[in-house]
Amino acid sequence: MDIKFSKSIGNVKKSFIREIFKVLDQPDMISLSGGFPNPASFPIDEIAEAAKKVLDLDGRHALQYSATEGYVPLRKYISERYKKRFGLDIPFEQILITNGSQQALDLLARVLIDNGDDVIVEYPSYLGALQSMSFYLPTFHEVRLLEDGVDLAMLEEMLKNHQPKFFYTVPNFQNPTGLTYTKENRIEVARLIEKYECLLIEDDPYSELRFYGEEVMPIKSYLGERGILLGSFSKIVSPGMRLGWVVACPEIMDKLITAKQATDLHTNVFAQRVVYQYLKDNDLDAHIATIKAMYRRQRDCMVTMIERYFPQGVSVTKPEGGMFMWATLPEGISSMKLIDQAIANKIVFVPGDPFYVNRVDANTLRLNYTNSNETEIEEAIKRLGRVIQDAIDAKK
Amino acid sequence: MDIKFSKSIGNVKKSFIREIFKVLDQPDMISLSGGFPNPASFPIDEIAEAAKKVLDLDGRHALQYSATEGYVPLRKYISERYKKRFGLDIPFEQILITNGSQQALDLLARVLIDNGDDVIVEYPSYLGALQSMSFYLPTFHEVRLLEDGVDLAMLEEMLKNHQPKFFYTVPNFQNPTGLTYTKENRIEVARLIEKYECLLIEDDPYSELRFYGEEVMPIKSYLGERGILLGSFSKIVSPGMRLGWVVACPEIMDKLITAKQATDLHTNVFAQRVVYQYLKDNDLDAHIATIKAMYRRQRDCMVTMIERYFPQGVSVTKPEGGMFMWATLPEGISSMKLIDQAIANKIVFVPGDPFYVNRVDANTLRLNYTNSNETEIEEAIKRLGRVIQDAIDAKK
Repeated sequence: MDIKFSKSIGNVKKSFIREIFKVLDQPDMISLSGGFPNPASFPIDEIAEAAKKVLDLDGRHALQYSATEGYVPLRKYISERYKKRFGLDIPFEQILITNGSQQALDLLARVLIDNGDDVIVEYPSYLGALQSMSFYLPTFHEVRLLEDGVDLAMLEEMLKNHQPKFFYTVPNFQNPTGLTYTKENRIEVARLIEKYECLLIEDDPYSELRFYGEEVMPIKSYLGERGILLGSFSKIVSPGMRLGWVVACPEIMDKLITAKQATDLHTNVFAQRVVYQYLKDNDLDAHIATIKAMYRRQRDCMVTMIERYFPQGVSVTKPEGGMFMWATLPEGISSMKLIDQAIANKIVFVPGDPFYVNRVDANTLRLNYTNSNETEIEEAIKRLGRVIQDAIDAKK
Repeated sequence: MDIKFSKSIGNVKKSFIREIFKVLDQPDMISLSGGFPNPASFPIDEIAEAAKKVLDLDGRHALQYSATEGYVPLRKYISERYKKRFGLDIPFEQILITNGSQQALDLLARVLIDNGDDVIVEYPSYLGALQSMSFYLPTFHEVRLLEDGVDLAMLEEMLKNHQPKFFYTVPNFQNPTGLTYTKENRIEVARLIEKYECLLIEDDPYSELRFYGEEVMPIKSYLGERGILLGSFSKIVSPGMRLGWVVACPEIMDKLITAKQATDLHTNVFAQRVVYQYLKDNDLDAHIATIKAMYRRQRDCMVTMIERYFPQGVSVTKPEGGMFMWATLPEGISSMKLIDQAIANKIVFVPGDPFYVNRVDANTLRLNYTNSNETEIEEAIKRLGRVIQDAIDAKK
C-alpha cells in the first residue's frame, strides 16, 4: 500500500533501547543497556497482598472507569511525600497521574509545542524525551552539561536569543550522564527561567535513589508556577505498573487533563489503587533503603571494575545515585560502531548518539548498573574493556 | 501567567461526559450518561485469583518494563478469538495492546493525520473519537447513518470528492445511536474503501454484547490491509484495566509501535498478565452470557419505560446489543437546553451536540442502560419523560 503517514510520525526515531530488546534473549548476553530496576527489588508479595485487599474492599470501583486526574488518595500520598521530603506544599489537585512519566512528557509536549517552537534540552538528554518531543516538530537547542549542572552562560544565551517554550532537565542523577545539579546551579536555573519567562520541565525519576552525598531540593522549590515537576513509581515500586505523575499549576493542568482525556481517558485505576494500598500498608522508606543498598553495591562494583578493566583514555562519571554511568572514549572512537562487536561478545550498552538531537558517531556511551548482579557487572566490564581496547588499537 | 499553548490543544473540546462526572455524586442522581458497564458484571474474585497467580508465578516479569507491542500470550489470545468467532486469520504480530481502545484512536490519528487532512466520520459519531482526532486538526466530513448502516451514496460522494485518510466507523451497536450495519452495507463499505484506496478504522468495543439478531462479520473480513480493527476488554472484563487493542497491517503497525513508544513506552504489563490469566482460567463466553442477560433485561426495561413515559413525537432506536439508545426529540427542541432541568430532576444523559463535529442545539440525546438497574431505569425514564414534556409544552 502507499499510505501517506503524518509528517510528525516521520520525525520520530525508533527507540534504540527498544530495538536492542531483540538481542537480549540470546544466552549469556549481559545487558548494561536499559534503565531497568533490579527485579530482586520488586515487592512482589506485598503487591499481591495489596491487590487482594483492593479487590476485596472495593472491586467494583477498582475495575470501573475512573477520573482522568487519577485516584485521589494516591495523589494525596504524592502530595504528602513532597511535604515530608522537601517541605513543599503541592495541592493534590496539581498532580495528574500518568502512564509512567513518559506519558507526562508526551502530554506536556502536546499542550505546549507547535511546529517550529524552540525548546531547550540537555546535551546529552534523555532519549525518551527527545523521542516524544520530536513528534511535535520543535526546534531543539542543546545546552551543555558540566560537573555541577547545566552551563548557565549557555542557557542564558539560549533563553535570551530565542523564546523557548521550556527547558527540559533531569537534574538528579541525570539520564544518561548520572550528573546532579548543585544547589547553586539550581537556584540560578530558577532565576533564569523566571527572568526570561520560560517554563521548566523538571523530570525526577531518580532522586529517591541517592546512595552518596546530600539530598538537594528540586528546582521547582525555587520556582513558582513556571516549574513543572515529573515523578514516577517505576524506580521505587514497579515500572510494569506504568505509574508516573506531573505536577503543574492549574492553568497548565487544565490543558493536560484535556489532553489526557483525548489520549486514553484515564490511567489504569486498578494499578493506581494497588500501588496506593501497597504504599499505605508498607514502609516505602525502608523499601527504598534496600533498593539503595543493592544499587550502591552494584554501582561501586562497576566503578571498581572500570578502574580495573577499561583502557587508559576512557573517562567515566561516578554518580551519587540513580542508575547510570556515562563513559567518554578517546576522541574519534564511535561507540555506535562498537555495538556489533559488543553484541558478538555478549554485551550490550546504549551508544551516545540517541541522547543527542543530531550527533552521530559520538564517542560516549551509557552504562546501566542496576539490572545486573556483581558477577555480571565484572564480566560485562571486562568484555567491554576488551572491545574498547581493540577499537583503540585498530585506530593506531 | 501568559502561556501560549499549542494550536492543537486549543482545538480539543473537554469531554462532556467527563465534565458531567461532577454531578454524579449528588444523592439520588441517576445517570444514563456514561458508557459504564454494570459493575455487578465485574469478575472480581476471578481477577483477584488471577492477580495472585501472576505474581506467584512470575512476579519479576509482571512488574518489570515490558515490550511496546504488548504481552504475547494476550495478543495470541485475541488472535485466536478472532479465528473462533469469525474464522479470521489475524497474526498476533498485527495486534498492538493499547491503554483502552481510546489510545488506539489517538495513535492512529497521530500516525495518519496532518493538519487539514480530510477524514470521514459518522453523523453522529463517538465523541471520544472526535475529541482525540480533533487534536490533529483534520477537516472532518460527516456521513449520515441510516437504519441499515451508513448512507452509501453520501459516503461515495465524499470518497470521490476528497482524498480522506480514513473513514472511522463503529458498525456494531454504534456509539451513540445503537445502530448496526447490515452485512450488505458492510460489503459495500469495503468495496468503496478499496475502490477509492482509503483506509477504514473499524471500532468494535460492543460486538460481543449482542442480545438479539445474528452476529455480522467485521467489515475487516471483506477488506485486506486497508482495514484497521479496534477492540477492547473494557466492556467484557473491566474498563478500569484500560486494555484495548488495534489490528493493523505491518506497514501501519510499524508506525503505531513507534508512536506508542514515544507516548508511554508500553501498556501496564501487570494488568495485561492478570487479564490474560483471567481469560485462560475462566470461560469468557459464559461470563459474557451473564453480562448479556443482564443488559438485555435493562435494555428491554428501558424500551418498555420509554413507551410508557416518553411523550408523543420522541423517537428512540431499539438496539440489538451494546449499551446505548438514541432519542430524537421533536424538531426545534435542544437536548442541551434540557440538561439543567434534568439535573434538577436528578437525572443525567448526554445531549446530542458533542457527537457532532459542529452542530449545536441538536434535538437528539444518548441514553445508557447498562449502568442502572431496572428500578433506576424506570424512575429515570419517568423523570426524563416529564422534562421532555415540559419542554414540548413550553414551545407551544
